[in-house]
Amino acid sequence: MSTFGQLFRVTTYGESHCKSVGCIVDGVPPGMSLTEDDIQPQLSRRRPGQSKLSTPRNEKDKVEIQSGTEFGKTLGTPIGMIVKNEDQRPHDYSDMDNYPRPSHADFTYLEKYGIKASSGGGRSSARETIGRVAAGAIAEKFLKQLSNVEIVAFVTQIGTIKMDRNPLDPKFQHILNTITREKVDAAGPIRCPDASVAGDMVHEIEKYRGEKDSIGGVVTCVIRNVPTGLGEPCFDKLEALLAHAMLSIPASKGFEIGSGFAGVEVPGSKHNDPFFYDEDSKKLRTKTNNSGGIQGGISNGENIYFSVPFKSAATISQEQPTATYDGKDGVLAAKGRHDPSVTPRAVPIVEAMAALVLADAVLLQKSREFAQSIVA
Amino acid sequence: MSTFGQLFRVTTYGESHCKSVGCIVDGVPPGMSLTEDDIQPQLSRRRPGQSKLSTPRNEKDKVEIQSGTEFGKTLGTPIGMIVKNEDQRPHDYSDMDNYPRPSHADFTYLEKYGIKASSGGGRSSARETIGRVAAGAIAEKFLKQLSNVEIVAFVTQIGTIKMDRNPLDPKFQHILNTITREKVDAAGPIRCPDASVAGDMVHEIEKYRGEKDSIGGVVTCVIRNVPTGLGEPCFDKLEALLAHAMLSIPASKGFEIGSGFAGVEVPGSKHNDPFFYDEDSKKLRTKTNNSGGIQGGISNGENIYFSVPFKSAATISQEQPTATYDGKDGVLAAKGRHDPSVTPRAVPIVEAMAALVLADAVLLQKSREFAQSIVA
Amino acid sequence: MSTFGQLFRVTTYGESHCKSVGCIVDGVPPGMSLTEDDIQPQLSRRRPGQSKLSTPRNEKDKVEIQSGTEFGKTLGTPIGMIVKNEDQRPHDYSDMDNYPRPSHADFTYLEKYGIKASSGGGRSSARETIGRVAAGAIAEKFLKQLSNVEIVAFVTQIGTIKMDRNPLDPKFQHILNTITREKVDAAGPIRCPDASVAGDMVHEIEKYRGEKDSIGGVVTCVIRNVPTGLGEPCFDKLEALLAHAMLSIPASKGFEIGSGFAGVEVPGSKHNDPFFYDEDSKKLRTKTNNSGGIQGGISNGENIYFSVPFKSAATISQEQPTATYDGKDGVLAAKGRHDPSVTPRAVPIVEAMAALVLADAVLLQKSREFAQSIVA
Amino acid sequence: MSTFGQLFRVTTYGESHCKSVGCIVDGVPPGMSLTEDDIQPQLSRRRPGQSKLSTPRNEKDKVEIQSGTEFGKTLGTPIGMIVKNEDQRPHDYSDMDNYPRPSHADFTYLEKYGIKASSGGGRSSARETIGRVAAGAIAEKFLKQLSNVEIVAFVTQIGTIKMDRNPLDPKFQHILNTITREKVDAAGPIRCPDASVAGDMVHEIEKYRGEKDSIGGVVTCVIRNVPTGLGEPCFDKLEALLAHAMLSIPASKGFEIGSGFAGVEVPGSKHNDPFFYDEDSKKLRTKTNNSGGIQGGISNGENIYFSVPFKSAATISQEQPTATYDGKDGVLAAKGRHDPSVTPRAVPIVEAMAALVLADAVLLQKSREFAQSIVA
Repeated sequence: MSTFGQLFRVTTYGESHCKSVGCIVDGVPPGMSLTEDDIQPQLSRRRPGQSKLSTPRNEKDKVEIQSGTEFGKTLGTPIGMIVKNEDQRPHDYSDMDNYPRPSHADFTYLEKYGIKASSGGGRSSARETIGRVAAGAIAEKFLKQLSNVEIVAFVTQIGTIKMDRNPLDPKFQHILNTITREKVDAAGPIRCPDASVAGDMVHEIEKYRGEKDSIGGVVTCVIRNVPTGLGEPCFDKLEALLAHAMLSIPASKGFEIGSGFAGVEVPGSKHNDPFFYDEDSKKLRTKTNNSGGIQGGISNGENIYFSVPFKSAATISQEQPTATYDGKDGVLAAKGRHDPSVTPRAVPIVEAMAALVLADAVLLQKSREFAQSIVA
Repeated sequence: MSTFGQLFRVTTYGESHCKSVGCIVDGVPPGMSLTEDDIQPQLSRRRPGQSKLSTPRNEKDKVEIQSGTEFGKTLGTPIGMIVKNEDQRPHDYSDMDNYPRPSHADFTYLEKYGIKASSGGGRSSARETIGRVAAGAIAEKFLKQLSNVEIVAFVTQIGTIKMDRNPLDPKFQHILNTITREKVDAAGPIRCPDASVAGDMVHEIEKYRGEKDSIGGVVTCVIRNVPTGLGEPCFDKLEALLAHAMLSIPASKGFEIGSGFAGVEVPGSKHNDPFFYDEDSKKLRTKTNNSGGIQGGISNGENIYFSVPFKSAATISQEQPTATYDGKDGVLAAKGRHDPSVTPRAVPIVEAMAALVLADAVLLQKSREFAQSIVA
Repeated sequence: MSTFGQLFRVTTYGESHCKSVGCIVDGVPPGMSLTEDDIQPQLSRRRPGQSKLSTPRNEKDKVEIQSGTEFGKTLGTPIGMIVKNEDQRPHDYSDMDNYPRPSHADFTYLEKYGIKASSGGGRSSARETIGRVAAGAIAEKFLKQLSNVEIVAFVTQIGTIKMDRNPLDPKFQHILNTITREKVDAAGPIRCPDASVAGDMVHEIEKYRGEKDSIGGVVTCVIRNVPTGLGEPCFDKLEALLAHAMLSIPASKGFEIGSGFAGVEVPGSKHNDPFFYDEDSKKLRTKTNNSGGIQGGISNGENIYFSVPFKSAATISQEQPTATYDGKDGVLAAKGRHDPSVTPRAVPIVEAMAALVLADAVLLQKSREFAQSIVA
Repeated sequence: MSTFGQLFRVTTYGESHCKSVGCIVDGVPPGMSLTEDDIQPQLSRRRPGQSKLSTPRNEKDKVEIQSGTEFGKTLGTPIGMIVKNEDQRPHDYSDMDNYPRPSHADFTYLEKYGIKASSGGGRSSARETIGRVAAGAIAEKFLKQLSNVEIVAFVTQIGTIKMDRNPLDPKFQHILNTITREKVDAAGPIRCPDASVAGDMVHEIEKYRGEKDSIGGVVTCVIRNVPTGLGEPCFDKLEALLAHAMLSIPASKGFEIGSGFAGVEVPGSKHNDPFFYDEDSKKLRTKTNNSGGIQGGISNGENIYFSVPFKSAATISQEQPTATYDGKDGVLAAKGRHDPSVTPRAVPIVEAMAALVLADAVLLQKSREFAQSIVA
């Protein structure tokens, strides 16, 4: 449904053509400084129309905090947030209405809810993600103060153009150690920090735009400075919660953590991350990090990193032979201009969902640590 | 934590060296025939020691239903199930005790819970999965009666040896349409239905066993005859729940549905699944199935299929330079014989978790359909 | 926290002096007619300032649906609702600020959240209940269409003035069978349908107002035409969920169902409700209804009725010797005019919470009935 | 359903005639000493057959911990517990089978689940409460170590015989301050610490036993040394969770906290609990405690006390004119010997449920306090 998280919990509402979209964030730590200025930057990064790589609709997406703060501090009570929809009128592409868009949610929403929203896929609209990003910004602020947690997502693949993301390659581990949002944004709207491929990625997207087509991509995300002990086996392992979060993002088709799919080819003797004693932190750490910062479902203090593939956008202006709702063969060509690649815009959404998972995991684990300190 | 599911819900308990492992399954439909005979087959498929491909420990793993049935019928009340641990004594490998096993859960469990179970990783033991498989068998029985839902998982990769699992290849789609558990088991303990690679997979495992090493693999799973409308956007999309379930299985490192990671290279014009009217079912169906049976987070009636990578097992008898809990450098060589590849044994666990996700999704959706029938 | 319900689920936000209060209602049946006109009437009944019996602040409390409907029909997606706060400025009674109001939530909110909202008790404000009432109105609309479920609450006691609510008295059972909201409102703002005591109740309230004091009361609620089978033993018995709901309302101090506290004096031979075969409904029914419509935690189809005591309002203008936050003895006299009895205004809130419990219970039970129809 | 609690969470299973009853307790603090000896005492207090006041069936009810502890310490993993049913055969009263017992759960269970357990009411069996008591004992052990939390329940009414439980009476507050389980048990099986009425209560029960009838009663419970800040407004106020817990106990019909129903007659000027500065604790405390230790849904550090009415037992051997399942008039007289008053046996169950609510509330609040310490 539309609630995510247990102790740090967001509930969202809103479609593309209703009055507003928004969310309620419950469980926010009380006494934390919080104003719209903490939230708007990620919302603006999520916003379409930032460049010719994205759809030209310019929604201003100004967030307004409704409740839960006073004099710039959180009260510990639920934080209501609203972003008005500027486009509240029904859509304008009437002949498309007879067709469920292939690989979009039009058909399945109708099957599920028995009613067709004028926008087709109802909550499958990208505007649904505004509430996630707003809530994630609050989670991030808490995590920052907790242990300077840094969450940075970036584009590692567009179509066939990819930067190296092999976890066994020290160069990639170096990127994971040093990448920042500033570096990601410095790459421009493509959000790929590897200058050797970023240009090609832009061309790839432009090529498909020219063909009225679309193309997929991969977002990789790293989380640094994570406390050990996060994650709740056996069903709520930290990677399971991250996977849940990432696969809930529109257009995502997978998830891999650490060495992921490629790692299955590596024997245990090479894949295992041996321990060493780290003089700086006075703790055990691992020499390599094929595990991706999680072992047995629990964070081990190393960088958490994972990748999420996003499929090519379903709505394209190219003609597609398909069938109408009534079952008649026909050809659909979506009117209007459509985003040929949603992948770069997914970056702040991936960051937001990661922040929500972590903030919740921290609250759960800290209650356990407290309890243990009492009984042991 | 140790509860999974909302309306069809399992809660599990048990480590490797305690008295028993088991689960409570709540929300089972009342009036359904159910005895241990419905559950034991999948438990036996999960059991180690079935062949030289697996660890030789022969645990009999007989399930005993404690409650919730009478005269072979479910009462609608919680079903308690127990499987006794035959090996209840503490483990016998004492010198290993000074070392957290690299990439195992020993270190993180200690960090999280502040206490070290004699078995090291506590609930990270493979025996934890017994409760999942037992519960999954009940879910499956319900799904079978619902719409003849068929869930079949199989091994598609061991190390570098892989069978084709390209969704755009009609041959692979044919396998997804026709694979059965009987065919999977006919392949022997390797559980790969492609005879052209199954032998190589066995050799791959044997090679690593010979080297006191381990190797990873991939399990692919197909679910056929799924009703449309399952999945609860925006956070509990069906693929999100499946990903959550799969990443909660020990040693899993990822999840991809439909075209997954490879699909990002395919432009929308080819990736989109066009609709056609199916005379047999009198419904819209899709000509291709790159979506993997789910669109917008909701099942569309086509086959659901996904793949899950399992890393090489962490416990190997080969010597590993690492550090002790105390931070001293040393060399660990695990005593005893260890399973060089957990992948084939993951097959019934993947099936069980898929069944649990689907049974829960069905109950949720059917309550909505009822409600809609009242108000519309 | 601020979410209530499992399948039919409301999440609320908002304090007394923030921008708006509101809620998100998830799980609303799709395809149901719904506009603000369905929601406003109960909000208006909840509104203060309806008469001299209540506080004179006149908040207009106009609800605005933000999402989840189109062309007057629900989409099955979350329904966001907002009611603007007219009084968004900080409060004006500055010398009171040094005192935690006795028996109010000022002290405990500070203990819990470590921060003091300018309004003192944060979410303990009566405005918090607006979201409940708005959500409850939607639940009620569904229940009405389900089986003409009727939920009517009314005042049965103010201070020492009480109408008979003895369940063994056929006269009271007759009232439960016939009371309507129209009759309740016809009694005026006191909302007591028994004309023989309603006038005295008004005088009781006026007396305490004159003394700058406050007084408590009891609200009784009946729910008619309830389907059998609702409630989820063993922990979520229907009466347990109702009790949870009622004790979550500000100022409530208890709950009793059916014969309640008085019933413990009645021996089983008299208290038990014998069955008879009802020719009209072709079902077993009970001759008496001391159980209050629920047996073993499950609805039996008879009227559900229960009572909820509301304590005298904590904020009074009379001088109260107490202590400041700093621990200094002093005398507090709340400025402004305060509601001497919140009981009559609790009527629509009790109805709303009852509707939310029932709608959720219906959805849960209907999914079970479906499942059973498949397997039996 | 059969799970209770969020962070400290119990899931139970078992009917009266199945193999065993038991539970899984998740979220238990790791590193806590725990053996069966911590759990058995409360189970033995719950056990029937302790005297002629109760049913003579002597079930030994020996609990066996299955998992989650090692060498007498908790591991932080789920604790499975089992109590074997000695009476596993189907029941012996065959002619009763045609009748749903009036005011028992036989009829409603059949309506809900569509299947009739041989024991009639399935999970409405008193044996269902064994899992609650076992889990509650663990919660209590944690609370004891937290802040020496003391939970003592006792019988304050049987039929018309009652001890004073007026919260405005200092004598009653003195009892709440000083009552212990030892004093309660010293009163014998009646569990009423007021010697001036305990004998009459025993006679009352004996009278109804002689008449093959049954009688109800009230259990009052006090919780001392509660930390401030527990409870999660607005829906999970501490009293709401306690009410939920208490109304989930078989045969309970209500709940009142602090001044409860009687308190509505007391004006605010007398009902409000004024603050004073307590030199001992260096904190604000209240001079009176009409609130019952909770204000605004949050514990204020004073004693929490509440009362729960239990109806007369439904199963009586006296003849009852009623109807068969088939709708035929007839007379039912239950065979066997039946407990004429379940109230005294409810004492440890009330204590257990109170402990479960508190342990969960503590874990929630402590995670918030941690978060606040980070951000403020």
